[in-house]
Amino acid sequence: MNSVYLDNAATTALRPEVVKRMTQVLNETYGNASSSHSFGRSSKVLLEQCRKDIARYFKVSASEIVFTSGGTEADNLALRSAVRDLGIKEIITSRIEHHAVLHTVEQLEKEYAITLKYVDLDECGRVNYTHLEELLQAADQPLVSLMHVNNEIGNILDLKRVAELCKSYKALFHSDMVQSIGHYQIDLEAISVDFMAASAHKFHGPKGVGFCFIRKESGLKPLIFGGEQERGYRAGTEAIHNIVGMAEALKLAYDNLEVEKQYILELKTYFVEALKKELPKTSFNGRCESQEDSTFTLLNVCLPIAPEKASMLQFQLDLKGIACSRGSACQSGSNQQSHVLTAILDVEQLKQPSVRFSFSIFNTKDDVDYVIDVLKAFTTA
Amino acid sequence: MNSVYLDNAATTALRPEVVKRMTQVLNETYGNASSSHSFGRSSKVLLEQCRKDIARYFKVSASEIVFTSGGTEADNLALRSAVRDLGIKEIITSRIEHHAVLHTVEQLEKEYAITLKYVDLDECGRVNYTHLEELLQAADQPLVSLMHVNNEIGNILDLKRVAELCKSYKALFHSDMVQSIGHYQIDLEAISVDFMAASAHKFHGPKGVGFCFIRKESGLKPLIFGGEQERGYRAGTEAIHNIVGMAEALKLAYDNLEVEKQYILELKTYFVEALKKELPKTSFNGRCESQEDSTFTLLNVCLPIAPEKASMLQFQLDLKGIACSRGSACQSGSNQQSHVLTAILDVEQLKQPSVRFSFSIFNTKDDVDYVIDVLKAFTTA
Ligand SMILES: Cc1ncc(COP(=O)(O)O)c(C=O)c1O
Ligand SMILES: Cc1ncc(COP(=O)(O)O)c(C=O)c1O
Repeated sequence: MNSVYLDNAATTALRPEVVKRMTQVLNETYGNASSSHSFGRSSKVLLEQCRKDIARYFKVSASEIVFTSGGTEADNLALRSAVRDLGIKEIITSRIEHHAVLHTVEQLEKEYAITLKYVDLDECGRVNYTHLEELLQAADQPLVSLMHVNNEIGNILDLKRVAELCKSYKALFHSDMVQSIGHYQIDLEAISVDFMAASAHKFHGPKGVGFCFIRKESGLKPLIFGGEQERGYRAGTEAIHNIVGMAEALKLAYDNLEVEKQYILELKTYFVEALKKELPKTSFNGRCESQEDSTFTLLNVCLPIAPEKASMLQFQLDLKGIACSRGSACQSGSNQQSHVLTAILDVEQLKQPSVRFSFSIFNTKDDVDYVIDVLKAFTTA
Repeated sequence: MNSVYLDNAATTALRPEVVKRMTQVLNETYGNASSSHSFGRSSKVLLEQCRKDIARYFKVSASEIVFTSGGTEADNLALRSAVRDLGIKEIITSRIEHHAVLHTVEQLEKEYAITLKYVDLDECGRVNYTHLEELLQAADQPLVSLMHVNNEIGNILDLKRVAELCKSYKALFHSDMVQSIGHYQIDLEAISVDFMAASAHKFHGPKGVGFCFIRKESGLKPLIFGGEQERGYRAGTEAIHNIVGMAEALKLAYDNLEVEKQYILELKTYFVEALKKELPKTSFNGRCESQEDSTFTLLNVCLPIAPEKASMLQFQLDLKGIACSRGSACQSGSNQQSHVLTAILDVEQLKQPSVRFSFSIFNTKDDVDYVIDVLKAFTTA
């Protein structure tokens, strides 16, 4: 049977080199990085080398990289401590953030007397920067949390613009970069982001590990208390094998970035053309058709399928061995409509099925051809 | 050069079978367990099988097992939510808990208007159960947090007794069982613990993964907010490879428990006898000499070494390839005295160097002989 994985925004397959390195560490380097004996020091050396390697890609200092159990924890760490420890009274975010941000700020609103404001978006999910500035003008001790690349529709934020706005209004800036780290070069020396979240399993690394960039002297405190690991920012014995896997995956991602980006972008373009030709009534959600406004890694399309047949689509794709998604993975088990699409589409558009196809270096044009065939057969059946 | 790893309370080497399973999962099962397509379902099946397997060993329901990034997170999850969401106003704990508990409750004391009380311990670190009952009698909406097996001196708590005390005074009972899970059979059907923390890397599983037992209908809420993973108790994409590794390690630990326990206990006894014979002035911290009051996995000894030579001991052991520890791993980098020994020893005793040797199935009598030789040479030099 055919098996086509087009859900790389949910998670990615590990690169063989990453698995190899991880296996090696699992077998050989088991010391606790906090132990002072030779076994501990071997782990510590690996750990700190990974931190340095990762920091370099973002032009930050190694001490600003804090390893976490993933993107969600990194978001929670920055957001919770900003409110609890840094005196943040208002959070400005958007309705199309990942739940790791949205549910966290909603929880913080319940726990603390903070105000939540949502920046206006256009029908393509683009941030209204004028509105953002208005919100900042009116705000008292605000933090802005806006993601770099949207995980459902692929929109790319103008990071530099937001960072500068934040700076001029003395707002802290947190950005969930889970969908862009490893896919885009990000220069945090040039862009004044205060906190950033990343996750290894989105760039062919292991699940359960990520990192939080925490700008020096920000005063952030831990989410998880205990031992003195991670310079006191995050307690718990470090998962060396996962961290090494992440560093290796990030290295491979950035070392091969241009070639692989080109390859994936070609696939995406090929997919767009094929859809336009074979299913001409397809519409593209957000700005995913654009090469500038949207990431090269995904397409979110509203398919010309009658609402009564829509419920069968996901099932049919699965039956044909095609892995794709209706929304983010954390929702795809449920029957809930995507909160991202709900925020930007109108009622009529929401009736038609939307599907996210997301790509990686492991996909081929054959995959796209196959999907088009299956979609065509389904729509015309 | 010799290389003897006797720091198994800090962390353990992975069993080869565990690495093999993990590598397999890393290569083959990369779907996001929240995705509804076949790749996601394969991961979900593994995930839920692990949960069932683990739950069975403790006679609890699978839905009461929540996977976390380790023991520290599990402790933080239970303690923070108990205070924030369950109306706990007082925490009764001890001064020899792990920092994952101590630093967390200290932080909670700062954030919330809770009272912290410490139960009396005797000079061996044993909980004064009469005092515990007095504290419970006087308390308003208390939670008791007492660890099952102490990571530095090996003391074993009478879990059943504490659980019953807690029950009769309507206190919640949290127990850090990081040092006992995989080493002791624990029946949570018979013992009414409400929350329990475990960590895979203490029983030959991977680092960066653990679990929290959360008694059904306890009302606990997440520490990390975001997606609906772990039935809403813990957001973040599940690290399937780590969870499978943990389940495999736990299975091997419990399936071979009696034989391995016997083996390790024999090593410990052999070590005790050798110390008594070769370094007769050695004293045993806590109750670590006892087979009933202390775990079979460790010895914490105060060595007959002049204070002026003490500072060289750790260095010398390391030079000879012996990995052991002064306190818990998270402290061993620093020059701080162990908070556990400080709580139970007097000033004179604290001047002499104490060392923790902790054992696993991968140790042999040759390891012990070698350590004894090195210690003897050092003390008499
Ligand atoms: C008793 C105890 N509790 C908690 C922990 C923390 O577990 P982890 O390192 O998995 O966070 C440890 C060891 O590190 C421990 O020995
Ligand atoms: C934009 C975004 N933020 C956060 C996350 C959460 O990351 P993790 O699964 O590593 O916790 C994801 C994906 O799961 C994501 O796409």
